[in-house]
Amino acid sequence: MTKSEKEYVRELTPMSQDYAQWYVDVVRKADLADYSTIRGCMVIKPYGYALWENLRDALDRRIKATGHLNAYFPLFVPESLLKLEASHVAGFAPEVAWVTHGGEEKLEERLAIRPTSEAIIGSVYAKWVQSYRDLPILINQWANVVRWEKRTRLFLRTSEFLWQEGHTCHRTYEEAQEETLRMLEVYREFAETELAMPVVAGAKTESERFAGALETFAIEAMMSDRQALQAGTSHNLGQNFAKVFGIKFLDVDNEEKYVWQTSWGVSTRLIGGVVMVHGDDDGLQLPPRMAPYQAVVVPITMGEKTKAAVLEASRKAVDILRGAGVRTHFDDRDNLKPGFKFNEWEMRGVPLRIEVGPKDVEKDQAVVARRIDRKKQFVKTEELAQAVVAQLDAIQREMLEAAQRFLREHTHRAKTYEEFKEIIEGPKGFIEAGWDGSAETEAQIKEETKATIRCIPLQGSEPDGLVDLVSGKPAKHKVLFARAY
Amino acid sequence: MTKSEKEYVRELTPMSQDYAQWYVDVVRKADLADYSTIRGCMVIKPYGYALWENLRDALDRRIKATGHLNAYFPLFVPESLLKLEASHVAGFAPEVAWVTHGGEEKLEERLAIRPTSEAIIGSVYAKWVQSYRDLPILINQWANVVRWEKRTRLFLRTSEFLWQEGHTCHRTYEEAQEETLRMLEVYREFAETELAMPVVAGAKTESERFAGALETFAIEAMMSDRQALQAGTSHNLGQNFAKVFGIKFLDVDNEEKYVWQTSWGVSTRLIGGVVMVHGDDDGLQLPPRMAPYQAVVVPITMGEKTKAAVLEASRKAVDILRGAGVRTHFDDRDNLKPGFKFNEWEMRGVPLRIEVGPKDVEKDQAVVARRIDRKKQFVKTEELAQAVVAQLDAIQREMLEAAQRFLREHTHRAKTYEEFKEIIEGPKGFIEAGWDGSAETEAQIKEETKATIRCIPLQGSEPDGLVDLVSGKPAKHKVLFARAY
Repeated sequence: MTKSEKEYVRELTPMSQDYAQWYVDVVRKADLADYSTIRGCMVIKPYGYALWENLRDALDRRIKATGHLNAYFPLFVPESLLKLEASHVAGFAPEVAWVTHGGEEKLEERLAIRPTSEAIIGSVYAKWVQSYRDLPILINQWANVVRWEKRTRLFLRTSEFLWQEGHTCHRTYEEAQEETLRMLEVYREFAETELAMPVVAGAKTESERFAGALETFAIEAMMSDRQALQAGTSHNLGQNFAKVFGIKFLDVDNEEKYVWQTSWGVSTRLIGGVVMVHGDDDGLQLPPRMAPYQAVVVPITMGEKTKAAVLEASRKAVDILRGAGVRTHFDDRDNLKPGFKFNEWEMRGVPLRIEVGPKDVEKDQAVVARRIDRKKQFVKTEELAQAVVAQLDAIQREMLEAAQRFLREHTHRAKTYEEFKEIIEGPKGFIEAGWDGSAETEAQIKEETKATIRCIPLQGSEPDGLVDLVSGKPAKHKVLFARAY
Repeated sequence: MTKSEKEYVRELTPMSQDYAQWYVDVVRKADLADYSTIRGCMVIKPYGYALWENLRDALDRRIKATGHLNAYFPLFVPESLLKLEASHVAGFAPEVAWVTHGGEEKLEERLAIRPTSEAIIGSVYAKWVQSYRDLPILINQWANVVRWEKRTRLFLRTSEFLWQEGHTCHRTYEEAQEETLRMLEVYREFAETELAMPVVAGAKTESERFAGALETFAIEAMMSDRQALQAGTSHNLGQNFAKVFGIKFLDVDNEEKYVWQTSWGVSTRLIGGVVMVHGDDDGLQLPPRMAPYQAVVVPITMGEKTKAAVLEASRKAVDILRGAGVRTHFDDRDNLKPGFKFNEWEMRGVPLRIEVGPKDVEKDQAVVARRIDRKKQFVKTEELAQAVVAQLDAIQREMLEAAQRFLREHTHRAKTYEEFKEIIEGPKGFIEAGWDGSAETEAQIKEETKATIRCIPLQGSEPDGLVDLVSGKPAKHKVLFARAY
């Protein structure tokens, strides 16, 4: 690929020069999303939305397979309902958008646009639950939510975003805890299998807990700038909401009890994660299982003599691939050169490019080029379907392995606060360190280094004889620190 | 079925006694939806939402097959944008919910929650379109919208509802008109094929036109109370929005021109249509293609001796049907009698009930009972899959045929206003009559009879020598009148 061909597509800001600008460039130039005229609200463009549809469908299958049903609850939460759970409203009030008028009339009570739906759903569940026979309630909702954010970034933090939120009710604490961890595991497996995004699953500290929850768990991914992204959360809500909304049931022992609840969610933020885990200086790289187009066929027409034959062979390749279930785009635009198209589809992260030129027509073959390492391979037409399907599987696996390697290589251990500071200012990444469990230590480290405790990992949080970085006391847990989005 | 068994399920209000109450009873008792504490907002329960998912997916396939891509635009429309198209804002302002505060701050400009998205999408398209090469733009959005309705009814008219809205841009009027009619036809075919709901497709008169459109088309269905339901609309927006939002392109002739636009939508209202086209005094009847459960298997356990064998045979029937791709529910609730279950699943409209009792186990068979006419049939286990699949096809066809017959039988022709009034007060239904094209006639008939012109049918609107019902002038069109939801 020559320099002049590269110039067909406007250059992206190199990651090394300005990572934040690189991110925005990729999101916009790969046509995933763009800002709108409304502060902090984005337009998700067709290519970005197709990616979201693939994520959504893959996760929705898992949510249903674990026994949950989808439903839909109102967009509005009356102010009085939102205020019932004190820590919940304290957490969300600063970022709520308020509806005050319907038509020409002033409303008697302000309505919040849901920042999350615990309050509105809790008030409904109170009517649905009477007996232990009504439990568990296992419901999920796909919806838009609004949080009036001061500083926004496409996909990562926007005033409106799309997400799913599961809301369940159970007989006992143990059942609720089991559900909380089950859905955390669904998220972990989904992120790794579908997004090729390895994550660390663990519990949040008290200061990072969801407003109103007993316990919050999260999956944390590592972006290519070695910062952490919280990619999904699962909360054991205990009986906090049940008590204020009156969600009670008559138990087997004939006693009236409050239900135990969970909630859990992932959002369009995951798309930002995919961009930052897999992208490079040439743009996006999409894991094959989620890519809107898994392959793009580009005819290389050179002169009128062979054009018809090239187009025919290209069209045949498209048909073969679609017949094999490969999501295939045919780029037969007549006014653009192949070099421009190569760059464009690399920028948009299509895993495989299939080139068909006059020579290939002669030899009854096609060129199959991989986005992740540019490796090219000549494939006979009759073997095309099989080769492409195999390549897509291989690429998915290689992308996960590369991301796992990256996460491993950039996970450090610090025994002293000095070491910790050197790592956080130098190589960055995840840092395993001892923590005595105190909010003071956590706050001081955050203040001084901008690193936060991402989670107390579900696996491997034994203190291992470590001491707290600040207090020097024996560590209660080995925890994971990082700077985060 | 004995009376006492019937009583297990609370009785529905008979249609003949109070149709409106029957409708609400069915929607609530069949567990489709319920009111929330927020005025006019409904909770779509899992069973209703599963029905919506089936509708959505079946329509989404058609929208994509006709070349459209999904995208997502902001929930908010700044007041200044909404006001740009004068007739548009006049049509929607009375029912807009306004956001005035974000967090603690008063917003500089009020934001409307989208009642429809022409304004916000138009402002975005203005940035996307530059050249004729950018056209056509063929985009669809699945979203929630809010219209602050004074009088609401579950699914039919709610303050918040779910819908899809297509928004397209074209080079010429002709292309826009072609698109408008293409999507109208997609809706017609979808309603008939999937919902077993026959419709009349036609143009709306000026007074019933979408606020801001050049021309509006609709599909009109007949409910079982012989009133009309507008089930979907498709608008040719002309250049009205293009001019106020500045959506311009450089055409092949190097001249700058405004695009021609369309928009089209159907909503959760369709669920209300399904209820009122197919329901009866025993509840809901769902067309098999859309039913969340196409079959429910009910074990008839009588005494402990045969219980295990009955449950095992029932479970086997479930596996066989699921293996054949039939959406099957296994009702193995232990605390309810079969009679109660029969009534419940009839009320919830499941097309086929599969009963398995001790006698059936002996004979290696099952009883297959149809919801639409209660006909029962004994089927050998080895033929079960084939028989059920065939029955589901047959029921879908029979439901459509019955609805078509009903629509035909309740479509009348009136040559004089006297005849017209007799029909509208008596048998009701659709009335074909002459119309001179004047708004005066239309308004007078609406005022005096509550009947409106539902549409000028695409097929069969030749005046046929008819005269206008009121003015007596020669008719311009033969149009379709009815009272409507």
